[in-house]
Amino acid sequence: MRDLSRDREWLAINTATVKSWSLEQAVAGCARAGIPAIAPWRDILQECGVARAARLIRDARLTVTCLCRGGMFTAADEAGRRAALDDNRRAVDEAAAIGAGSLILVAGGLPAGSKDLAGAHGQVRDGIAAVLPHARSAGVALAIEPLHPMTAADRACVNTLAHANDLCDALGEGVGVAIDAYHVWWNPDLPRQVARRGTRILSYHVCDWLGPPAISSSTAACRGTASSTCAVCAAWSRTRATAGIAMSRSSRRRTGGSAIPTRSFASASSATRPWFDQMRRAGLDACADQY
Amino acid sequence: MRDLSRDREWLAINTATVKSWSLEQAVAGCARAGIPAIAPWRDILQECGVARAARLIRDARLTVTCLCRGGMFTAADEAGRRAALDDNRRAVDEAAAIGAGSLILVAGGLPAGSKDLAGAHGQVRDGIAAVLPHARSAGVALAIEPLHPMTAADRACVNTLAHANDLCDALGEGVGVAIDAYHVWWNPDLPRQVARRGTRILSYHVCDWLGPPAISSSTAACRGTASSTCAVCAAWSRTRATAGIAMSRSSRRRTGGSAIPTRSFASASSATRPWFDQMRRAGLDACADQY
Repeated sequence: MRDLSRDREWLAINTATVKSWSLEQAVAGCARAGIPAIAPWRDILQECGVARAARLIRDARLTVTCLCRGGMFTAADEAGRRAALDDNRRAVDEAAAIGAGSLILVAGGLPAGSKDLAGAHGQVRDGIAAVLPHARSAGVALAIEPLHPMTAADRACVNTLAHANDLCDALGEGVGVAIDAYHVWWNPDLPRQVARRGTRILSYHVCDWLGPPAISSSTAACRGTASSTCAVCAAWSRTRATAGIAMSRSSRRRTGGSAIPTRSFASASSATRPWFDQMRRAGLDACADQY
Repeated sequence: MRDLSRDREWLAINTATVKSWSLEQAVAGCARAGIPAIAPWRDILQECGVARAARLIRDARLTVTCLCRGGMFTAADEAGRRAALDDNRRAVDEAAAIGAGSLILVAGGLPAGSKDLAGAHGQVRDGIAAVLPHARSAGVALAIEPLHPMTAADRACVNTLAHANDLCDALGEGVGVAIDAYHVWWNPDLPRQVARRGTRILSYHVCDWLGPPAISSSTAACRGTASSTCAVCAAWSRTRATAGIAMSRSSRRRTGGSAIPTRSFASASSATRPWFDQMRRAGLDACADQY
């Protein structure tokens, strides 16, 4: 496994990690901290203006690992699905403009009122296929990010790396996967899927799972146990991720809305600790506090 | 697919569905409603007294589809794991005493302070293996129930039917699976795992997924969309479940702790509606209201 405890070469900051910052602030923060890469979200990119953002990022000599995010292909009607495709083509253009290594795709959930899971899966596959020619010609790889199964109905119906890999196999050149440890750490099939022949990991997101979201009926909800991302980290370390590392958003996801970054750092597993330590040494505690 | 709209033969009531009832009340309620089977939880079984419960159930001519639940094999130390085995052997004895078709096993999560997911998986496998001889000689089948991945850290580290099936393959005769639609509906691998050679479905739980639990950071949390269990229902209908149907606990799991059974019924998918309709016709609305 790589020694990540001192090396910032593989570290990128996902702007959701420093959510209160504008793109200008995030770029300046990365430059100041000696972090060589950034993964911006589209909202702050658009606030900044794409052309101006591209200039700022270039001037700061930052690598853009990925743009977050496209996707959301599922819709109740044809007009909705067409609007999603248009938006994804715009996202591809934005990614190309800032030199992003890939565009992250979050699938979308079940269309409003629908209970047709297989149909939603088909809409996602067809949506990616429809955007793919534009992405290929723009030189932007599409990174399918499986989200945690608890999001399957309302946000993302692609919930395992196996499913994302199957989509890659079906769609061919120009499509890969993004792995966020928060979403996939629980799956015993993960090492096999990371090692699967032809798997193209375009982005890897470091997160800890600090306990389940609130399940009102269960006294077990939110015990605060920090379980680990070790499985995926260990598996990933045997592969060569082709893009950098986008930083954790786990705190933001914790029950109750209160983020306790200090605790997040303290409870980081041995696998994720090097990343958190690097953030801390880089003076990015302050950023995390601004959740 | 079977026509379940009128037929109560395959319907059982899980006592968690009528949680405020004692075992005596649940037995009387089933008999009154013409529901031929029951799946009790251990807490109310023990409150009633196992020998007395066995008599009540026999006198009411109820089938016991399963006893909920054993498992929770993971622990931080040897003493904890041994205590879990002792408890599981007692659960086997209770299941045998009431003539239960199977004992439901919920795996257990990561031991306190542990981040060793593979180690927890091993503890679950070893735990079931250790209880199995006693279960076999008592004639009680062990039903491994995969729980939703959001419970992986704190409650159950077996989260897919694939994993449960793999355990069955490894452990041999006397072990099968329990399928709760709430926990597994999202998985595109589900039909394949239901149809997998040698898969032995001992229990099937009908639930709807009414939206994710509260994820504080996400505006998408709890939109209340009723997504469906259609995938697993369709898959299951092609197999012969060897035991009856345990009724939904989905309402109890909804965000905020407030159960709205009427809405739960109203939003039931076409696949689950026959069960809910039967409950309603059987006069069990009142029970559901007592969540």
